[in-house]
Amino acid sequence: MPKLWNETIASHRHAVREATLDAAATVITESGLAGVSMSKIAERTGIGRATLYKYFPDAEAILAAWHDRQITRHLQHLAQVRDRATGAGSRLEAVLGAYAQILTHHPTGAIVAGLHRGNHVEHAQHRLHEFVRALVTDAAQVGEVRDDVPADELTGYVLHAVTAAEGLDSPAAADRLVALILTGLAPQQGPRSPRPPSTDQTSKSAAAHH
Amino acid sequence: MPKLWNETIASHRHAVREATLDAAATVITESGLAGVSMSKIAERTGIGRATLYKYFPDAEAILAAWHDRQITRHLQHLAQVRDRATGAGSRLEAVLGAYAQILTHHPTGAIVAGLHRGNHVEHAQHRLHEFVRALVTDAAQVGEVRDDVPADELTGYVLHAVTAAEGLDSPAAADRLVALILTGLAPQQGPRSPRPPSTDQTSKSAAAHH
Repeated sequence: MPKLWNETIASHRHAVREATLDAAATVITESGLAGVSMSKIAERTGIGRATLYKYFPDAEAILAAWHDRQITRHLQHLAQVRDRATGAGSRLEAVLGAYAQILTHHPTGAIVAGLHRGNHVEHAQHRLHEFVRALVTDAAQVGEVRDDVPADELTGYVLHAVTAAEGLDSPAAADRLVALILTGLAPQQGPRSPRPPSTDQTSKSAAAHH
Repeated sequence: MPKLWNETIASHRHAVREATLDAAATVITESGLAGVSMSKIAERTGIGRATLYKYFPDAEAILAAWHDRQITRHLQHLAQVRDRATGAGSRLEAVLGAYAQILTHHPTGAIVAGLHRGNHVEHAQHRLHEFVRALVTDAAQVGEVRDDVPADELTGYVLHAVTAAEGLDSPAAADRLVALILTGLAPQQGPRSPRPPSTDQTSKSAAAHH
């Protein structure tokens, strides 16, 4: 077959795939995760069910592909945000702020929870983890993030804490969440111990209030 | 029927219920969440499938009851930890430390994710949220936790961040996670703004490193 024909087929397949993921997103928005079925997605995409089954074996596979596309888009957006900021600390702060806003406006937790735990979700979370860990490592190297806790643990803290943004209803609340997270990441002054501030504060405050 | 007979029946029913939940936990540990079925749980409990169906309509209901029992046990344990500590800040720190250790050793995230989102999981998370929010509010009132962010938001931050403990492999790592979270909660010095420290630190570090 001529090259042009192959390209046309590839481009057509890509278009059907994209339209299917868009349709799945619409069905999820309208009917919730439980309402997603091959019939509904086929109907919304405007293709036959038999054709849909040539692209995806089941609704779960469509959700996984949709989730993968979401993560890819989020990472592309976050990479742009990162590249616009100057300095390792500012880059981390800008990315975290942008990600919290994404989660506030497009919560995906319920969809991820609906996907069976497996290679797909782990792989997607791994991409996000690596992206953030690189920022955390850079910021720790220039002293803008604490270096008394391994970067992997700091990244786990960041990525779990930021999912609290899914329950928030305003950009201002998401900004406050990011400020809390960044405070936890800040370099610690004085002698390093696992829990430096709280013991002192407890006794001081107890003294002040009794 | 005499009272004693009713009590015997109630006690028998309670015992069957508890044994079923224990069996479900064992099956989950051995075969994973996907391996849980009414047949397997009945077999493990040593009762007939027909009897099991008199207690629970399906495996999902057993998992929900199991999750409910877990949350109840965790909250009982955390209430004991809270009552052994003195001072609002110490109580919060002790409870958070104990909860992080629970999550490190008994991760329930995968099971919660496997339950359909609904009233049950929301209710369980609400109990945990209220328990921690009371500790956060008390600590904020005596100046041991920041009061420039609403207690509900601080609690959301704490409960999402602490789930990072599920991926940790040592008690020491869980302690470091708790220290990070508590640093985020600490009262902020100086003028209050949503992101006080990071901007200053960025410019200072940038100056120091160039």
